[in-house]
Amino acid sequence: MKRRELLKVGTAAGAGFLATAVAAPAIAQSQPELKWRMASTFPQTLEILWGTAAQLVKRVAEITDGRFKIQIFGPGEIVPAFQVLDATQNGTVEMGWTSAYYYWGKDPSFAFFTAVPFGFNARLAEAWYLHGGGAEFVDEVFKDYSCHCIQAGNTTAQMGGFFRKEIKTVADLQGLKFRIGGFAGNVVKKLGVVPQLIAPGEIYPALERGVIDAVEWVGPADDEKLGLAKIAKYYYYPGWWEGGAVAHALINLNKWNELPANYKAALTAAAREAGLWMTAKYDAANPAALKRLVANGVLLRPFSGEIMDAAYKATEETMNEFAANNARFSRIYQSVRAYIKEGYQWWQVCELPFDLYQVRMSNRS
Amino acid sequence: MKRRELLKVGTAAGAGFLATAVAAPAIAQSQPELKWRMASTFPQTLEILWGTAAQLVKRVAEITDGRFKIQIFGPGEIVPAFQVLDATQNGTVEMGWTSAYYYWGKDPSFAFFTAVPFGFNARLAEAWYLHGGGAEFVDEVFKDYSCHCIQAGNTTAQMGGFFRKEIKTVADLQGLKFRIGGFAGNVVKKLGVVPQLIAPGEIYPALERGVIDAVEWVGPADDEKLGLAKIAKYYYYPGWWEGGAVAHALINLNKWNELPANYKAALTAAAREAGLWMTAKYDAANPAALKRLVANGVLLRPFSGEIMDAAYKATEETMNEFAANNARFSRIYQSVRAYIKEGYQWWQVCELPFDLYQVRMSNRS
Repeated sequence: MKRRELLKVGTAAGAGFLATAVAAPAIAQSQPELKWRMASTFPQTLEILWGTAAQLVKRVAEITDGRFKIQIFGPGEIVPAFQVLDATQNGTVEMGWTSAYYYWGKDPSFAFFTAVPFGFNARLAEAWYLHGGGAEFVDEVFKDYSCHCIQAGNTTAQMGGFFRKEIKTVADLQGLKFRIGGFAGNVVKKLGVVPQLIAPGEIYPALERGVIDAVEWVGPADDEKLGLAKIAKYYYYPGWWEGGAVAHALINLNKWNELPANYKAALTAAAREAGLWMTAKYDAANPAALKRLVANGVLLRPFSGEIMDAAYKATEETMNEFAANNARFSRIYQSVRAYIKEGYQWWQVCELPFDLYQVRMSNRS
Repeated sequence: MKRRELLKVGTAAGAGFLATAVAAPAIAQSQPELKWRMASTFPQTLEILWGTAAQLVKRVAEITDGRFKIQIFGPGEIVPAFQVLDATQNGTVEMGWTSAYYYWGKDPSFAFFTAVPFGFNARLAEAWYLHGGGAEFVDEVFKDYSCHCIQAGNTTAQMGGFFRKEIKTVADLQGLKFRIGGFAGNVVKKLGVVPQLIAPGEIYPALERGVIDAVEWVGPADDEKLGLAKIAKYYYYPGWWEGGAVAHALINLNKWNELPANYKAALTAAAREAGLWMTAKYDAANPAALKRLVANGVLLRPFSGEIMDAAYKATEETMNEFAANNARFSRIYQSVRAYIKEGYQWWQVCELPFDLYQVRMSNRS
């Protein structure tokens, strides 16, 4: 029964007091006072990734007149950076702010939801998620980990990272100790690279001490903050393993199911709006950050055709190996692969010629 | 005073009834029952543009437990397609769903908020709006028309439209009667074209009867619905005057100012989320629609270098003419031009090489 109907019944019975007394719990039920904790993989120093979570919780509080409060905790405050999924799954926290592909070791299908090598660009990732069956796959996989997941923002195409020495051929990659995120480690291994997953806070000292030879993180805006250019001058592009990496808001599935419908709607809208903010923030911050890096002596280098083609081949092999051993991975891979092929066939007709012409004109005088 | 504090005070005084009675109006004020009308420029047959408004009002209703209801009306139901700004400004409707550049005749600065020739692509338009000063310009201009405006979605890069005959040189454009939206009419005039603004519902008969020789509307998904390919076979790209066109939710400024803060937050989040949905929907629908058009005999043609360069020059002349006569237009133009230049200088380093490689691979086999 709706609140208005209750009020009507109450008034009809001439029992104004009763009506109000009965109505109050109905409101309380749809507007409960909640205080949730959100564990973040990303530290506050990464102001775009942290800032996206901040936008999300601010908007939820505004919409609910402060009744639904979510507090963000940085990596190490409640759990380490890469235990955000576990902490959300087991209810240590109600929410997590992370990126699915960090957990590909638990389930390789997680990789698709953030980025796989030669995968989606930022816009195609969103199209697949909202309109191409992606959200249904996300629901299916995260359900196994007792989480509800909302896609929220994209880093945009990432750089290939900072290298101490020039990398011209596949031979130059042999034995290279490379900090690289997510599933892509499986691919670069085939190229002779020794992949290492290191949390953001530990990247700089690892490169400085020579524990690693090269580092990919995100793009100019974030990379500049890690200060990597001081140690490694060669800045490669494009990050073919992350044409756009997606961030995710996780909610413990029981907690999600307990939420009233209006809070579910508010949280979903706020997370997606925050995601829009994030993607736009990278697009806004990267141009100036790149200029500053170059002005400070960073040398931009494209990956050679030899490396790109070898990486593409290694990616196909890797994907097929995982698909052969995992039926769900195979199903999602077929969906993603077809979407990329068709998406880019259209891209080349309209977006790409426009962007190419604009790039040409932006380089004039 | 917050509701909880009121309850506490009431309970402390041993006056449970009073506390409840006092608390009710505080909730009612922040959760008023509202029924608004939204006039749309776009008819229901254009399912993505209409669907975006539908997403918006659905989400607002969900978040507010049905207390804030907005009903959408198609063009001609309350006001004609291109009088949505006027109707919102004068309070005939509380909201409008339209695109700012249809009103460039009232104020040429409106053009920047949707698309100007050789302007933003979809992502740069969002970056400029959210993080590059765009939203502040939007507020400044729309305030003069007693509206609050929320940017909500992008059509993505548009096609150049359907032409009855091949267009290879600027000479081929002389005297061509061309349906074209918004500010771009000023530019194509300089190329010898006779621009005409025709509402969506009247485009097909105008082309069929030969009132016009060519039509640009949006992209494959929308263009296919207008059935233009039956009359004009040559489908040109890219639509250099709309690298991405933005849609807008307008709210009468007095009505906006009267909204409680939580409703303002809900409406903003819902509109931006709907915008994300819209951009993704175009990216999802265009690839298959293009395939169908080509399978039905449409012939894809790129605009020649001669036409692109002449159009770029005509655009610069046009923008400078308007800037010379309008200080605010000039201010916004400087901001937009600098943003495009810097944005594309970064784009060429990371997004473009990734997209180019993906396009190449999507064409294999």
